Amino acid sequence: MPLLVVGSVAIDNVETPEGGRHDNLLGGSATHFSYAASFFTPVRLVGVVGEDWPAEHTVLLQSRNIDTTGLQQVAGGKTFTWTGRYEPNMNDRETLNVELNVFGEFNPVLPESYQEAKYVFLANGVPGVQQKVLDQTPGRRLAVADTMDLWIETQRRDLDALLGQLDGLVLNDSEAKLMTGTENLVKAGHLVREMGPKFVIIKKGEHGAMFFSEHETYVMPAFPTDKVVDPTGAGDSFAGGMMGYLAEQDNGFEPEQIKTAMAYGTLTASFNVEGFGLARMKEISRDDIEDRMTKFRKMLSF
Amino acid sequence: MPLLVVGSVAIDNVETPEGGRHDNLLGGSATHFSYAASFFTPVRLVGVVGEDWPAEHTVLLQSRNIDTTGLQQVAGGKTFTWTGRYEPNMNDRETLNVELNVFGEFNPVLPESYQEAKYVFLANGVPGVQQKVLDQTPGRRLAVADTMDLWIETQRRDLDALLGQLDGLVLNDSEAKLMTGTENLVKAGHLVREMGPKFVIIKKGEHGAMFFSEHETYVMPAFPTDKVVDPTGAGDSFAGGMMGYLAEQDNGFEPEQIKTAMAYGTLTASFNVEGFGLARMKEISRDDIEDRMTKFRKMLSF
Repeated sequence: MPLLVVGSVAIDNVETPEGGRHDNLLGGSATHFSYAASFFTPVRLVGVVGEDWPAEHTVLLQSRNIDTTGLQQVAGGKTFTWTGRYEPNMNDRETLNVELNVFGEFNPVLPESYQEAKYVFLANGVPGVQQKVLDQTPGRRLAVADTMDLWIETQRRDLDALLGQLDGLVLNDSEAKLMTGTENLVKAGHLVREMGPKFVIIKKGEHGAMFFSEHETYVMPAFPTDKVVDPTGAGDSFAGGMMGYLAEQDNGFEPEQIKTAMAYGTLTASFNVEGFGLARMKEISRDDIEDRMTKFRKMLSF
Repeated sequence: MPLLVVGSVAIDNVETPEGGRHDNLLGGSATHFSYAASFFTPVRLVGVVGEDWPAEHTVLLQSRNIDTTGLQQVAGGKTFTWTGRYEPNMNDRETLNVELNVFGEFNPVLPESYQEAKYVFLANGVPGVQQKVLDQTPGRRLAVADTMDLWIETQRRDLDALLGQLDGLVLNDSEAKLMTGTENLVKAGHLVREMGPKFVIIKKGEHGAMFFSEHETYVMPAFPTDKVVDPTGAGDSFAGGMMGYLAEQDNGFEPEQIKTAMAYGTLTASFNVEGFGLARMKEISRDDIEDRMTKFRKMLSF
């Protein structure tokens, strides 16, 4: 089944202690999500870019069976740009510069061909804008959203209104703590779930991810890699692999199915961090993900 | 098979944000290790206490099939005391007071009945003192040690000399980073292994544990619990459950066997944190650990 994603499409400039600085990388939450999901299922992308947007990026996305009909280009506008520097631990990062540009006025309008989407992912964005996407996808079967500290702190009412309409919410550990005021992630996960979504996934970066539904609590480690080159987009790649697998299988979203999907997300993300931007993702195939899945299952069985 | 452990036996005073302050708890690395291991195998404890040592603690240990022949009592001496306070995240802690007392002069002399020990655990202590135990256990089959930042920083030569004689080293994530100068734990684990031990286990607290041998890299999550009351001794309980299981099974220590043993360590530790000192451990039986094992295996399979 096709998978709809709405979110940022950006140009990233990334600096890491070991890898130096890499400019003009194809980035953004919806981009990383789309590329990761494209290993599993056709993707329909909604986003906005400026007149400066290199056409080659669109060509790349299209070559991955990512439908870019919904990628608006604003004449005279500039594409969202993010510049950041990672700390030596490759987990903490400093944002050096953000230019929202055309993304600051983003109004997602779904092409007609997108509106019957069954699988919907709202990548990190203003909750009010995420709401507009839900309003245009009344026939959806699964809606999952990501969010961030900024919206938790400044758009809480809109975010709370959104939560009740979601099947799933994906957020990282510090955001879950911020949202609930508790330091225990097991408590936090269930507290967020009680705010509306049927399930919650907490991303812990190198420490893996946790899943919470009414009767289930799962923890899944990350795939161990000694090659962490650029963590940008890891969380979006995780979500993309997970949602891509669910849309591909299209056989429901019980906790057991989501657990398998989370494993695919984990492994897809484990490749994403091995190169700057999408560099490593461009080198791999579904077979590489499946090879890693065999190792991952072996690692977790005893 | 009996399991020998040498390390600290202490009186702890512990304060947590939610649980308040609890004084005069039976603590120490060898104590937590012994109690955890006693669910699996007979334990032979070597340690030192002062004249102030409450006899009831010895009675408790003996009731668990922990041989205390090797627990020296120093007339006129005072027992090692640690007082600490946990931060709200229940991971970071501040040491408010340490009185080494008789532990500062600890000279482990193994009773003759202990000297043919096959399974040996050197709980955290001065590397030179840990060495003395190795010297007295020439017939050992498996020797595993714990260490800490203080020895890495101040006793590096002794520690390095010890490493080459160990089968396994257990240490926590910050210690592995300190020891190797790298922030990537997969790299760090293998670098520590190259310093001597056949295998290395990095403890990550609430994020689980990692295993490194020449050809294997495993990550295992912690068992998710929303009831973290007192993390003191969690790492020692992990090691105790793991070593206890290996000694009980006595069928080798290939990576696959150690993985199962790590799971038992993980679950034993998950109970330890649910009460102050040994309070929760006193309530449970091997059956409770096995029940949690069933859930843990289910959680990790997909």
